[in-house]
Formats: sequence, structure tokens, C-alpha cells
Amino acid sequence: MTQPEDQRWMALALSLGTRGLGQTWPNPAVGCVIVKDGRLLARGWTQAGGRPHAEQLALSKLPEGAACGATAYVTLEPCSHTGQTPPCASALIKAGLARVVVAIGDPDPRVSGRGLAMLREAGIEVVTGVLEGDARRIQQGFLMRVTKGRPMVTLKLASSFDGRIATATGESQWITGPQARLQVQALRASHDAVMVGGSTAREDLPSLTLRGMGDRRQPVRIAVSAGLDIPMHGPLAEDASGAPVWLIHGGSAPQSARNFWTARGATLLEVAAGPSGLDMAAAFQALGQAGLTRVLCEGGGSLAASLLAVDVVDHVVGFTAGVMLGARGLPNLGALDYPALADAPRFSLTETRRIGEDVMHVWQRVVF
Amino acid sequence: MTQPEDQRWMALALSLGTRGLGQTWPNPAVGCVIVKDGRLLARGWTQAGGRPHAEQLALSKLPEGAACGATAYVTLEPCSHTGQTPPCASALIKAGLARVVVAIGDPDPRVSGRGLAMLREAGIEVVTGVLEGDARRIQQGFLMRVTKGRPMVTLKLASSFDGRIATATGESQWITGPQARLQVQALRASHDAVMVGGSTAREDLPSLTLRGMGDRRQPVRIAVSAGLDIPMHGPLAEDASGAPVWLIHGGSAPQSARNFWTARGATLLEVAAGPSGLDMAAAFQALGQAGLTRVLCEGGGSLAASLLAVDVVDHVVGFTAGVMLGARGLPNLGALDYPALADAPRFSLTETRRIGEDVMHVWQRVVF
Repeated sequence: MTQPEDQRWMALALSLGTRGLGQTWPNPAVGCVIVKDGRLLARGWTQAGGRPHAEQLALSKLPEGAACGATAYVTLEPCSHTGQTPPCASALIKAGLARVVVAIGDPDPRVSGRGLAMLREAGIEVVTGVLEGDARRIQQGFLMRVTKGRPMVTLKLASSFDGRIATATGESQWITGPQARLQVQALRASHDAVMVGGSTAREDLPSLTLRGMGDRRQPVRIAVSAGLDIPMHGPLAEDASGAPVWLIHGGSAPQSARNFWTARGATLLEVAAGPSGLDMAAAFQALGQAGLTRVLCEGGGSLAASLLAVDVVDHVVGFTAGVMLGARGLPNLGALDYPALADAPRFSLTETRRIGEDVMHVWQRVVF
Repeated sequence: MTQPEDQRWMALALSLGTRGLGQTWPNPAVGCVIVKDGRLLARGWTQAGGRPHAEQLALSKLPEGAACGATAYVTLEPCSHTGQTPPCASALIKAGLARVVVAIGDPDPRVSGRGLAMLREAGIEVVTGVLEGDARRIQQGFLMRVTKGRPMVTLKLASSFDGRIATATGESQWITGPQARLQVQALRASHDAVMVGGSTAREDLPSLTLRGMGDRRQPVRIAVSAGLDIPMHGPLAEDASGAPVWLIHGGSAPQSARNFWTARGATLLEVAAGPSGLDMAAAFQALGQAGLTRVLCEGGGSLAASLLAVDVVDHVVGFTAGVMLGARGLPNLGALDYPALADAPRFSLTETRRIGEDVMHVWQRVVF
């Protein structure tokens, strides 16, 4: 049975869990608080690399016996399978918890109700569904990887008022202001990987690393180029300590390029050809297989269009600057095919606000 | 000398004045309140068509002698010249006002300090500059017409996330939602005229009338077409009672078209050719000459670009929908020529908020 304070403690657990977004892949970013007699005993969240798990961390902060009779709030069903560590469900049982409140079940077939069953069998009162909506939203990447086989995808497009990302002569620095660029760093920090298309990799020579965000796991840097045509002397070829490079390419990629990038430590993901260019639906399945739960695509326009075409974009974050570049500028989105306006991809507005001199607007996919 | 309550009463006068925006041209939209012993005696604002003036209306609500010794708050220097009615300065003197507080002076050469001088000569205490910045912003159209010879221009662009106003096949209804369209009606209501380019007039067949905004003066409907190529059976050719049609064209416009539109009661404004198309700077001088103080340009992309090219756009109002149309769609802005990104037209963000399902973002010209 739920109790009046359950939502408040679960909200705290969820906010702790968000700290792990972008850090814990392939594991979920879980939060946990342990409460007794209305007082907070311990907090935990899944650590970088996915371990220790939130529950283990919270329990580890308490002296033996302290959690006896207490309530644990966990944002995801505790695991039931022995991996590199014993299952969290066993740890909670062993610690003597009287009650475990869970936001959502874990769809991972290795857990999927077994964690809750273990707790119940041990005589622990189990409550589920507390702040379920929030929990689904925060853990969307993990849930999608388990249920759809692909990571959640956020498309970020920063452009002029008229939707251009560069002038006719290729100038693109800086259309949006420093605060918007800092916001993009925060977006990168909460994603497992950052992705750009080949043109952007060649023309902007982006490093795609996380800067000024403290001591965090670097996101995987992904470039998509059918012919593996990525500048061999650009920042992606340099050692950016701890920031892996994954390259998605087609069967036609020359062996010399494959050899070069393999020697540099990059991970090559070969993908079949799709109706136009690479089969991006297959590419995202491969990224899910490789463990990614949250991918931030930063353009350019062709890659953005190819992601929209296979309907893998879950969120769009737009930054709009008050500059007018005109129709000879580079569009933020390539060509799309759809029979009528009613069939064009639609997103629903989540939030809009000023970020420095620019407008940030956040949208999520409308699912019919 | 200013008094503590001056700002509060002037704020009320300004808010009354805004009621006249779009209604009072060629006259300014002025607000006036008359206050005695801290109590509001009367309110007035310039009526549709520009008369009665705000001060005259406020005074007319009071019995004789009631304003004696009172303070009048007026958002613009009272007029000093006899037009169709005696000057407001004389009326204030005659009513026995002890004090007149004014937000800004009237740059009109027929007034320009003479109104204030008349009041002072009559022994009235005159205070100026109260909420001057707000008053300049609200009365910008009137001030620009006097000082620059042209109306203030607001450019409204409603487009898809990627800055498109129609699909490749020309579908454009509806990209933004009903709330955004209602907001556009409110924008029209606060402008003296609504302007579109020839392509928009031909392809969208807009009526450009004010709908559902109560009993208000209809804005002038302006279409710009060098060859006077406006559909003769579209809504602009119909009698929309009280909504005048003004057509801006070049010397090459065929006589038959000129005859047709003149017979329909349209006003024709012939403008010389500019570097590309019509000389839009000259066109806006002609509109100022004709009395307009506030013009709302609703596109399309070519007209928007031609206005930006001659730097007559003072405000931009963007509506962005969460639909993706792709690079084959019609751009919201035509081609612009500028040497480098730093020279592209820039606007600074005034406001952003959700309007229904869309984002509204309002910008004003950055003047260096």
C-alpha cells in the first residue's frame, strides 16, 4: 500500500538517478534512498560505468543492521541476477528492509518481475508504480534499448532564425551564443554518445568531447560516413583520453581507411545500405546492441533527415538565434519524403525558454 | 518635480494608450489620466481614426471645473497646433490643470516643445520623462514616422521547425496551430497595415482581414508586386468592408491591371526599381507619407528578405511548429547578400513562450 510520503522520497530517488544519465550505460541510471521513521538514512545512484548499483551504494553507506525495518525507494526494479556483483534484491533482503517502493519494473528479461518476486518471497512489502511516468521519462533510453533494441535519440539542431546552420560560404561559428553552447555541453553530458554526419565531421572538424562539465565519463563520439571519409588529421583521430570513437560506415569503405581507424583504436560498425545511404534503423540497432541507451545527434542536416526518415528521433532540442542567414545558407535539415503535410514528422512542445541570447525549444515525438 | 506616484499613473496612461495601436494612424496612440488628491478622475485614449485625442476625451468626461487643480498624465506631449480641433494644450489650460506629467516630447515639427511651452507659460507645472523608455517603445511607430519618415515594421514568420512555410507541393495549411493563428490576429489588430508579397497573394489568396477581434478599424491590406500581378478574383479584389487595399508596384505594371484595381477602389503606390526588384526603402517612405505608423509584414520569404536587405525590419515575431518539412520545402526567408556571418542582420530576443502547440519568439533589431 502506498503511503503519503512515498512520492516525495521517490522524487528524491529519481533526481539522484538522473545524475547517472550518460554515465552508466549499458546499465540503467537508477537512484535509491533508504528511509526509516520518516528520516533519510542513505542515498545512492548508479555510478559511472554502471556499478556499483544504486541500492548497493546506498546500503554500503550504512552500518550493519541500520537498514533493518527501513523502506528503500528505488527508481527501477532491483536486479535479480548475479552479474559481476550479487543481485540487489538479495542485498536488500539481507539488509533487513521491511518495505521496498519501486517506480517501474525492469523489462530486462533477466529481471522482469523476478526482482520483485524475490523481495515478496522474503516477506518484504513491495509497492510499485510510484511516480511511474517520471521514471519512464528519465529512464527512457534504458527502457527503449531493452524493448526496441535501440537507444533513445535526441536530435539537437542549432540554427539561425531561418533554420540555417552555416552561411553560403560555410561560416558557422558562432550562430548561437556561449550560453547555448554551454547548454549543448550539458546535453552531451547526459547522453552516452554524441553523433555527427560525415559532412559535419569534415567541415567543422568537431572534437565532440565534453568540456567544462567536471569529472565525467566522456560520451562515445560517433561519426556516420558510408565511405568512412573522416578527416585523418582532425580531432576525432587524436587521442582524447577516455572519449571512444565509433565509426558507422558501409560495405564500400576502403580497407586503408578501415586500417587507419582501427589502428587509432576506433570501433568500426559496418551497416548495410538502406533506401538512401546507410540503413540508419540498422545502425541504431547496432548501437543498442553495443550497449548505448542515449544518443545525441548533433547534425548536420543530411544525417538529421536520415534519422527522421527511419523514425528513430525521440526528442528534438532546437536552439534558434536571432540572426538571418537567408536561403543560400546551409539548411539544418536535409530533404524529407512524405506524401502530404499531415504525414510529415511531428513533435510536441515540452519546453521553451531563453538561453542567453537564443531560444531553446524542446520537443518530443508525437506517437499516433 | 516628479512625485512618488507619477510612475504608477503614467503606467496606467501608457496601458490606455496601447488600446489605440493600429487604430489611430496617422495620429499617435496616446493615453491620458486625470488625477486629483490621489484619486483617478478620468481616463482617455486616442480614438479610432486619431480623434478625439486622449486629453480631450478624458476632459470631456468631467463636469466643468472638476479638473481644476488636478494633475494630467499624458504619454506624449499635448499638441499645440489647431487642426480639426483646438490644441490639447489649450484645453488642459482652460480646464485649470495645476500639473501636467508627460512621458515623452512630440517630435512632430508642428509641436516639438511648443505644447509644453504653452503649458508652462500658463503657469502649469510640467514634468517630462516619466516612463520615457516604455513610452518610446509603445509609440515607436509614430516616432519613427516623424523622425525617419517610415512606419515601424514587424516581420511575422510562421514556419516549421526547419524554417519552411510550405511543403514542396505547396501545402501550407496548417503548419502552426489555431492559438498561433489567433495570436497573429492580435498582431494584425495592433498594426495599421498588413503586408504580403505577390507570391503569397497569388498562392495563399489571403484575405488579410481582422477576424474575431471585436469592433476595430480594419488594417490596410498591402500587397507588393512589381508587375501588379495580384489575383483579380481573390479576396483582395472583394469588398471587405472598411479594409482598404493598397498595392505597391513598379513602373512596368500593365495599364489594364492599374485600371482594374483603381476601379475596385484600391490605392496604387508606384515605386522605382531597386538593386533587386522594387526599391523597398522608397516604398516604406511612401507608406510613411501616406500616414502609416505600424506595418506587419507576413511574408513570404522573398518579401521578408527584401525588407531585411534595406534594413527596415524593427521587430521579428517567429512562430515555430514542431513539424519537419525538409529542405525541399519553401524557405521562410529568401536569399540575402552579406559579406560574412558577422554582417548578417541580427535581432535580440525580447520574449519567448508557448502559444498552444507552437513556440512564439519575439526579437528586436540590434542597432550598433
